Amino acid sequence: MVTAEIKKVGLIGGGVIGGGWAARCALQGIDVVVFDGDPQARRKLDEVLANARRAHRALTSVSVKREGTVRVVADLEEACAGVDFIQESLPEREALKIELLSRGSHAARPDVLIASSTSGLLPSRLQSSMENPERFMVAHPFNPVYLMPLVEICPGKQTSEESCERAAAFYRSMGMKPLRVRKEIDAFIADRLMEALWREALWLVHDDIATVEEIDDAIRYGPGLRWALMGSFLVYRLGGGEAGMRHFLEQFGPSLQWPWTKLTEVPTFDQALIEKIAAQSDAQAAGRSIRELERIRDDGLVAVIKGLKSLDWGAGNLLAEYENAKHAKRS
Amino acid sequence: MVTAEIKKVGLIGGGVIGGGWAARCALQGIDVVVFDGDPQARRKLDEVLANARRAHRALTSVSVKREGTVRVVADLEEACAGVDFIQESLPEREALKIELLSRGSHAARPDVLIASSTSGLLPSRLQSSMENPERFMVAHPFNPVYLMPLVEICPGKQTSEESCERAAAFYRSMGMKPLRVRKEIDAFIADRLMEALWREALWLVHDDIATVEEIDDAIRYGPGLRWALMGSFLVYRLGGGEAGMRHFLEQFGPSLQWPWTKLTEVPTFDQALIEKIAAQSDAQAAGRSIRELERIRDDGLVAVIKGLKSLDWGAGNLLAEYENAKHAKRS
Repeated sequence: MVTAEIKKVGLIGGGVIGGGWAARCALQGIDVVVFDGDPQARRKLDEVLANARRAHRALTSVSVKREGTVRVVADLEEACAGVDFIQESLPEREALKIELLSRGSHAARPDVLIASSTSGLLPSRLQSSMENPERFMVAHPFNPVYLMPLVEICPGKQTSEESCERAAAFYRSMGMKPLRVRKEIDAFIADRLMEALWREALWLVHDDIATVEEIDDAIRYGPGLRWALMGSFLVYRLGGGEAGMRHFLEQFGPSLQWPWTKLTEVPTFDQALIEKIAAQSDAQAAGRSIRELERIRDDGLVAVIKGLKSLDWGAGNLLAEYENAKHAKRS
Repeated sequence: MVTAEIKKVGLIGGGVIGGGWAARCALQGIDVVVFDGDPQARRKLDEVLANARRAHRALTSVSVKREGTVRVVADLEEACAGVDFIQESLPEREALKIELLSRGSHAARPDVLIASSTSGLLPSRLQSSMENPERFMVAHPFNPVYLMPLVEICPGKQTSEESCERAAAFYRSMGMKPLRVRKEIDAFIADRLMEALWREALWLVHDDIATVEEIDDAIRYGPGLRWALMGSFLVYRLGGGEAGMRHFLEQFGPSLQWPWTKLTEVPTFDQALIEKIAAQSDAQAAGRSIRELERIRDDGLVAVIKGLKSLDWGAGNLLAEYENAKHAKRS
């Protein structure tokens, strides 16, 4: 089955991530069937869809011809039978995922690709009880899924190369950036980096070096601006100036031995630390609701991605490619 | 001395960071005297200045009335006598900084603030041999200094509160975001976070999970886009959805025990790893020169900061404030 024939997607789980997938698909004209037992699922999905429509209008001049339908069902098999692609976004509980992925694989047509949104569990374990496990892989997206381009593709031991390629083509057709993970590893690439940063941030709060708001400011007025453009290595290449990357690395080496992070310890995540962070986070939010903050975030992502469009570089370039493809398809 | 009276700045060190300070000051109409023994210093400074002018034109509608002069001198005392503010940006060698800061402090007027750009050394140690050490602090900027807003202010044991406030006002008047570090700590805030991420990135390259380009892609198409807007904690607040920050943290707790990072070990930074990273970095640069890459970076930062200007949020807001202040001053 080629990408163009994916007209209907089954989603296992309709939470923050599943809802984001529903929105990305629907705005591509793809029909979605969401399996979710939460009685609030419909309302939550509609709120995510409203935010996603707003962001999509702001981001691109390419209009949505016909928005896909989003149907919520309380039966897993109903969400998996008769669809052309399945994406699972359940809570991060391995046993639950293994069981529902197995059931989904028995309900689906044998050629239908099945991907898990897990941010850390290993694909070889998740595919262990599946029917036709060669069509399964991890495809790890980022919140909000309807705006964030990255999707990390990590095959398990039984996954076929062809499945990875078909999945990557599908995500690419939806304006995403599939990134192949070279080896099966817990938490893949981006979440390992996020986790490393997050642990250090927890220490800074724990030790009263900075509040959560000050840490967020340190990132967003500082390295965060560069990370959005260039990641880490290219930034350091420039930090080295004319002397070049080798020289920079040779100088940088010793600092790995300096006490610049608390990397050899993990803070105890007790109630006191939870309470401290949560209270500081409430102060930072200053009464703004989650939906309000989501709109601020979405406006910012739109501004960044659109801003980068003129550069032939990074996420903006992806948007330009996507728009060109859509325009070409119609003309 | 009030901020408005800072007309001339002495810079100790004219490398990548010192050159960035020279450019930021000059584009504010502030005269600069740079102490640098490198015979190439003049040429390098002129190249940084050219890039900075280009970025400034693209970033803001506020024109430069009169660009400050940039004079290079081979005598430290000459760069420190008769100036209104001193910023040191020497290589990260503590003994060197202590000696030159001491000499600079003896050459300067006693009320002149002196700040170090160090990204990790402790201010209490750097000020130990100075004349009038109460006017000294760390003020750690980010590359490129003429575009990046963040400057981390960290006082030492002998630093006066008044000095910190005067320095913060000066940086703010140049469109920067001063962030006070609450406790004296190696590497302050942003560099601790960068270092944590960087160590994990080194492991990923070392273990062949990903190349440097793939890691940069994982950041810039993924979490980097959000870091530019919101940092880390606010992003996680949104990741928790309606359940809220406390619930999210309680769920997140256990993952600190998972093998999601290699945080308990530091990779050996041997020649093999240096060679591997440098070669992958060369491939990523694809023949582009440092100056070329710097212009791509600058265009990106301009796009991001300008894009955010409409949002009343983050770095864009700072730009709007800065432009308003400049316009008000002239009308």
